[in-house]
Amino acid sequence: MIYGHVLSTGNEVLLGDIMDTNSAYLCRQLKSCGVTVIKTSAVPDDMAALVREIEDIASTADVCVMTGGLGPTPDDLTTGALAEAAGVETELDTQALASMKKYFDKRGFELDFANQKQAMLPKGSKFIENLHGTAPGFSMTIDKCRFFCMPGVSREMERMFDLKVRSKLNEMTGYVGEIQVIRLMLFGMAESRVGEVLSGFALQFPEIHLGFRIRFPMIEVKLSRLKEVVSDSDEGLDGAKEMNQAKLWVMEKLGDKVISDQGLTLAQEVGRLLTKRGQTLSVAESCTGGLVANLITDVPGASAYFLFSATTYANSAKEAVLKVSRQTLETNGAVDETTALEMAVGVQETGGSDWAVSTTGIAGPSGGTEEKPVGTVCIGVAGPSGSFSQRFILDSGDRERNKQLFAAKALEMLRRELVKN
Amino acid sequence: MIYGHVLSTGNEVLLGDIMDTNSAYLCRQLKSCGVTVIKTSAVPDDMAALVREIEDIASTADVCVMTGGLGPTPDDLTTGALAEAAGVETELDTQALASMKKYFDKRGFELDFANQKQAMLPKGSKFIENLHGTAPGFSMTIDKCRFFCMPGVSREMERMFDLKVRSKLNEMTGYVGEIQVIRLMLFGMAESRVGEVLSGFALQFPEIHLGFRIRFPMIEVKLSRLKEVVSDSDEGLDGAKEMNQAKLWVMEKLGDKVISDQGLTLAQEVGRLLTKRGQTLSVAESCTGGLVANLITDVPGASAYFLFSATTYANSAKEAVLKVSRQTLETNGAVDETTALEMAVGVQETGGSDWAVSTTGIAGPSGGTEEKPVGTVCIGVAGPSGSFSQRFILDSGDRERNKQLFAAKALEMLRRELVKN
Repeated sequence: MIYGHVLSTGNEVLLGDIMDTNSAYLCRQLKSCGVTVIKTSAVPDDMAALVREIEDIASTADVCVMTGGLGPTPDDLTTGALAEAAGVETELDTQALASMKKYFDKRGFELDFANQKQAMLPKGSKFIENLHGTAPGFSMTIDKCRFFCMPGVSREMERMFDLKVRSKLNEMTGYVGEIQVIRLMLFGMAESRVGEVLSGFALQFPEIHLGFRIRFPMIEVKLSRLKEVVSDSDEGLDGAKEMNQAKLWVMEKLGDKVISDQGLTLAQEVGRLLTKRGQTLSVAESCTGGLVANLITDVPGASAYFLFSATTYANSAKEAVLKVSRQTLETNGAVDETTALEMAVGVQETGGSDWAVSTTGIAGPSGGTEEKPVGTVCIGVAGPSGSFSQRFILDSGDRERNKQLFAAKALEMLRRELVKN
Repeated sequence: MIYGHVLSTGNEVLLGDIMDTNSAYLCRQLKSCGVTVIKTSAVPDDMAALVREIEDIASTADVCVMTGGLGPTPDDLTTGALAEAAGVETELDTQALASMKKYFDKRGFELDFANQKQAMLPKGSKFIENLHGTAPGFSMTIDKCRFFCMPGVSREMERMFDLKVRSKLNEMTGYVGEIQVIRLMLFGMAESRVGEVLSGFALQFPEIHLGFRIRFPMIEVKLSRLKEVVSDSDEGLDGAKEMNQAKLWVMEKLGDKVISDQGLTLAQEVGRLLTKRGQTLSVAESCTGGLVANLITDVPGASAYFLFSATTYANSAKEAVLKVSRQTLETNGAVDETTALEMAVGVQETGGSDWAVSTTGIAGPSGGTEEKPVGTVCIGVAGPSGSFSQRFILDSGDRERNKQLFAAKALEMLRRELVKN
């Protein structure tokens, strides 16, 4: 058993100014490498506190992944603290300096004196390259514990972990780096209900870990299995078979709430289906205010199938751009199934696309009436062979979350049409 | 100075299955009570690890707020661990039992044996009522440290802290709960540069805490001052005056990068300015794909000034809806200052609004050329008395972040026009 410790440094963590997302990320990664995390901690930018914590960890853990404190400012104490705890000096690491210089040169910046300080690493430590930022990482052993020091910036840290640290941990634990993972994406089921429905899983599949992650308004269900290094190849096959059985078991329980068994979001799945069909999409939005288009265009390559979107807050724009009839607007109002239908058909024509989806509703906090309360949304879908619209009430009590719910519901209605044949 | 420790318990934290949001919350609350947090940590549901951690905290901190492990299952070890660390037995707390019985009765449930275990508290501890769940909290002193043990469920914990624990901490530190806070929002300056520019702050204003929070692509700079309980009312006035001086000092250093001294985002500030002027806005987007409209419509009440937005990925939509001339598109291409200008003027007319802003560029990861690399964006602004456009290169190396950068830049250009007179 290899025991791990996850250490965050930085005043901003202890002031509660930022959420320490790094630690949760690293706990997950360590687990996937076969390391048992026995403790996480966070200490401020204070030399005495840091050294004390490092010494404590060195005597209790086999491996410590540590984030933050590698920058150029006087508050950045990680290098000095590791050196002090190990009883060594720091010295200029030529590899670290060269790597920083390369990073700066590429961007046309000059290395200044403060930056050069970052290349001073503890004697006997091993430089770890940072391909996505300036702060160099490093690893070193104190007592029985191997420390991996990484930047606090999540993006840089995650990439450094993936490219440089993961393989070292896998070596230590004897696990191979690959995990067999299956990701299912759900929409339209509450998290507590997912837990209930899948409560028998552990008993049925004791070797497979089941985890949830909320990606509001979707939920990702992750099945994972650590493939141990085995010489007997049959065992590997059994593992894959069992994963497949587990996936089928879960999918049966969750029914049509599963929108993707590849971990794709609604927008990604809609994009995949449109690409497969060689068809195009336009969007007409009112209450979602551009969010549907934004979700669609977050997917790289969306320009291949996404043509046009109109966010028509003003009724005059609904008339002028989407050709919604004035009579519909006057008789039924903006938030209405007929209006939604005319919006979808109108934008399909204006955009010249095969498919169209529309939203009109009341995201709140104000604007609700007794007949049409906050959370009311009408969604229209127009396709090559017809169009329809529906009304829903989806209220989360928050404007931004309501927009997200409405947008997801619209994409889900479109997705269901796209998979129909 | 009162030193605090925040302790989370539970395997799910160390497996990375859940984000430890309780710790960040408690760090903020402790700070607002005048407690200096010197460490946070998380340990698994393991008796030996828990007892060791509690003993360590008891010898280093004055106060420890602790969450989790108060439930009825065998994994819930907090009560036993505190008792062991203190060298006392647990005993039935009649107040705790009565409170749980009341909670169950109200819901028509029966107390079972497992629940009664929850009312067994360490000898000498003081019961803390949980008004929003079943697990009773308690406080007790070990060595020099006062421990406050609360449930791990955030909703229950936050309410218990607010109603029952906060006042105890305020008594310990002699602070009143209120903090005086000023929030400045910045755009267009790197975080490291903000730190550099403001590096003299602590020396100048030792009583005021300066913090940053990244709200990409903006940065929030927060000045906060703990108002001490003072009998001399003049001192309170001095505090407010000093805060104002600090704000002016910071604003001078940051110059025109400050977009709001009320902590407003770009979209909120643009909304505030449009409302003040009684004017309206339309948006034409290409590369930002609906994000500008989405940011604008996240602000409650946006329907008062936001009329229309067109996301025109396809050139045909740029021509049909925005009246961009075919010649411009054929000669200059979609990513071009003239195109951006025509888009802004076109959507101003189609939407019938006083103001308009447009974006056209290359968010990546593909689509870049040598002349127009990924990160190129052209932004147009049209107002009541004229229009203009500009080209920028803003590349973060990530599609979604590029969209955010482009959208913020567009809103910032509009904001600058709106404040001009």
